[in-house]
Amino acid sequence: MSLDSILARIDADQPAALDRLCDLLRIPSISTDPAHAGDVRRAAEWLRDDLAGMGFAAELHDTPGHPMVVGHMDGPGPHVLFYGHYDVQPVDPLSLWDRGPFDPQLQETPRGRVIRARGAADDKGQLMTFLEACRATLAETGALPCKVTVFLEGEEESGSPSLVPYLRERGDALKADLALICDTGLFSESVPAIVTQLRGLLGEEITITGPRIDLHSGMYGGIAMNPIRVLTKILAGLHDETGRVQVPGFYDGVEELSPELAAQWAGLGFDEGAFLGEVGLSRPAGEEGRTGLEMLWSRPTAEVNGITGGYTGAGFKTVLPAQATAKVSFRLVAGQDPMRLRDSFRAWVEAQLPPDCSVAFAPHGAAPASRMDISHPAFEVARQALSAEWPGEAAFIGGGGSIPVAGYFKEILGMDSLLAGFGKDDDAIHSPNEKYDLSSFHHGTRAWARILTGIAAG
Amino acid sequence: MSLDSILARIDADQPAALDRLCDLLRIPSISTDPAHAGDVRRAAEWLRDDLAGMGFAAELHDTPGHPMVVGHMDGPGPHVLFYGHYDVQPVDPLSLWDRGPFDPQLQETPRGRVIRARGAADDKGQLMTFLEACRATLAETGALPCKVTVFLEGEEESGSPSLVPYLRERGDALKADLALICDTGLFSESVPAIVTQLRGLLGEEITITGPRIDLHSGMYGGIAMNPIRVLTKILAGLHDETGRVQVPGFYDGVEELSPELAAQWAGLGFDEGAFLGEVGLSRPAGEEGRTGLEMLWSRPTAEVNGITGGYTGAGFKTVLPAQATAKVSFRLVAGQDPMRLRDSFRAWVEAQLPPDCSVAFAPHGAAPASRMDISHPAFEVARQALSAEWPGEAAFIGGGGSIPVAGYFKEILGMDSLLAGFGKDDDAIHSPNEKYDLSSFHHGTRAWARILTGIAAG
Repeated sequence: MSLDSILARIDADQPAALDRLCDLLRIPSISTDPAHAGDVRRAAEWLRDDLAGMGFAAELHDTPGHPMVVGHMDGPGPHVLFYGHYDVQPVDPLSLWDRGPFDPQLQETPRGRVIRARGAADDKGQLMTFLEACRATLAETGALPCKVTVFLEGEEESGSPSLVPYLRERGDALKADLALICDTGLFSESVPAIVTQLRGLLGEEITITGPRIDLHSGMYGGIAMNPIRVLTKILAGLHDETGRVQVPGFYDGVEELSPELAAQWAGLGFDEGAFLGEVGLSRPAGEEGRTGLEMLWSRPTAEVNGITGGYTGAGFKTVLPAQATAKVSFRLVAGQDPMRLRDSFRAWVEAQLPPDCSVAFAPHGAAPASRMDISHPAFEVARQALSAEWPGEAAFIGGGGSIPVAGYFKEILGMDSLLAGFGKDDDAIHSPNEKYDLSSFHHGTRAWARILTGIAAG
Repeated sequence: MSLDSILARIDADQPAALDRLCDLLRIPSISTDPAHAGDVRRAAEWLRDDLAGMGFAAELHDTPGHPMVVGHMDGPGPHVLFYGHYDVQPVDPLSLWDRGPFDPQLQETPRGRVIRARGAADDKGQLMTFLEACRATLAETGALPCKVTVFLEGEEESGSPSLVPYLRERGDALKADLALICDTGLFSESVPAIVTQLRGLLGEEITITGPRIDLHSGMYGGIAMNPIRVLTKILAGLHDETGRVQVPGFYDGVEELSPELAAQWAGLGFDEGAFLGEVGLSRPAGEEGRTGLEMLWSRPTAEVNGITGGYTGAGFKTVLPAQATAKVSFRLVAGQDPMRLRDSFRAWVEAQLPPDCSVAFAPHGAAPASRMDISHPAFEVARQALSAEWPGEAAFIGGGGSIPVAGYFKEILGMDSLLAGFGKDDDAIHSPNEKYDLSSFHHGTRAWARILTGIAAG
């Protein structure tokens, strides 16, 4: 049976696959640092050459920033688009690294063997699992079981400024039946996961203006309206006593979790106490009557991410400031319309303004939530593939944050995404001594081989 | 009659008096700037010499900062202590001055003649009104009608760090029946005023801590407690819908305005709309059912003077911060105990903390309000003296801010203060092009002569 031979080849080829990953990890492709622009390009070229070596029609597409790597290979089955990113985070503080961030090394640790380097997990190690799966499949069978487009970005760690323009201009060539995105993690050490829903994000900055100028509270305190008082009053009304958001219409369109997902999530045995204990907390602070995973994945939120007004330096100044500002964000779930919510939030704030105060709003993004159509057969294929590689049954989980590329694929190309990744919580992505478990690399590669074969059969 | 001859001498001596004031104004005695320490001392020496020239037993008393000028002259009547300060504010931005800040000049303006220089009004011009009154009295009568101690400080514009230690150590020699403080203003162009009550100030900084570290709202939003949410909820509860402060016991001991003062204040014709209109406001924001002057002078307040938490830079960051901080101040009136209120405020905040949150408090001053005993005959003497010099009847008014020295005189020396000053709202103290009206200087000098004579007769 050809899948067995592909998996056997993956097993046998691990040392060579790790050598290739080390080659890629040696290139310091820090996208945010202009001094590394040449290195970023070098990583793109390395990947283009690797794809071309496997027989992909591979090209670099220049952008105003770093290039996109695109490789196509025809196949008989459905068309899948694989997305990963080859750029990495900066490495400072360098003094906290045990060795050079771009001098990758295999290490034994109490929890297994790891490969340690910047980008090992995020995202070079992860993206190479897919390429290695293709390589082994091609070596064993001479072809891929489905049509595959590989699309690798070099600006993910610096805000992806070129991504949307690129997708709008040249996205047609990337349009596939499904996107496969490998930039997420396992649910736990033993339980792999496929992220099927991601929250969206609406960001709003509100600035309340009271008096024309800052006032002295000795001269004006008591008679003059203080915009901090107005702002705190408004923000304090964001949630009621049960944690529900009070902006009118906020929950319009928000659906209850399906019984299937509710059962799957309950089966994950999420330990709220342990999760919160890591950051010094003990009790879930969200809506009463909701589970911790609902609070994180399927319930919308309102949070104040920043607030400032008046004198905030050392000591004290009895000022009544002219202005006070807050940055407010809403994590959104499927069914919520960001633009309608923005209007509703602004109207709600305006309705609470006392005489003599005005408000100015600045928008900071409005991305809807993503909820994948898990009836697409690839989701069950992927669930079985991951379940076969890890001890626990794979779960369909949610994500509390957004993975913008999944939203763009949906919005611009009309394409759902299947998000499967093999990172662990202790991978230290974005931090010193980033690592990727060799077991993640190995089982991840095997999982993609299973998925490709399964999708083709599907 | 000797008062008439004293007043006549004051009138005749105006040109020489202005020359002396110009001499003093030429000394750039900026107390906060170490580069000007020698100038500050020079101003002190100038005043000591001027006092000694009149026959005062005058000395400089060194402090760790700038020296105190102290002059004593015996007399038959009660003992009064005159307080003023000879240091001035910095002058930047220098580019906004029409001429050198220490190059005083007499100017004609549409609203009368003025002397323009840094310190003209605050406080060199004001303190010289008293010295000129003494000079004219001495010249006409050969003696002062009461025992007078002159006490001039050189650190008022830089927080008076040496004042309290000095008063504790050497204050006995300053102890008098009443202090006369000349560092305030007229109520209006035509209505002079004596400030008989000043609000105190309690400053508290509160820092709420939630999670141990800043969190990403994608990963933790919805389940983790956000300290900004806790802080805004607490601050929003500082006032009820009618503007009353909700800290338990806040109004304990607060008295209603006496009918006499209520009538006097009502007679001032305070124009709330004009007062607020100058700073872009239109409606009093204090307690419902109170007049604007009550809000400013006789009612206690709670204000948030500063607030900060989370990300406050340009753009947006979806952080759930570990901490949020606010600086809160209370303007206090007679009858309120700052230390009891501090305890009550802290307990009130603590009682509102949800699980997983802690609070830290930092004290920023606790000064009680001052309310002078206006039954002391000098108050009526002063009211008549000022009424004789300006078109309108002089009023006993309140002050919204604190004049710390009045509190220290009361607390350390057990001495009430009579605050009479002749500044105008448009004097631009602390700002470029500071000025003092020659009419303020002239009538202020005459008023002090009347007061000294009146107190002696009283």
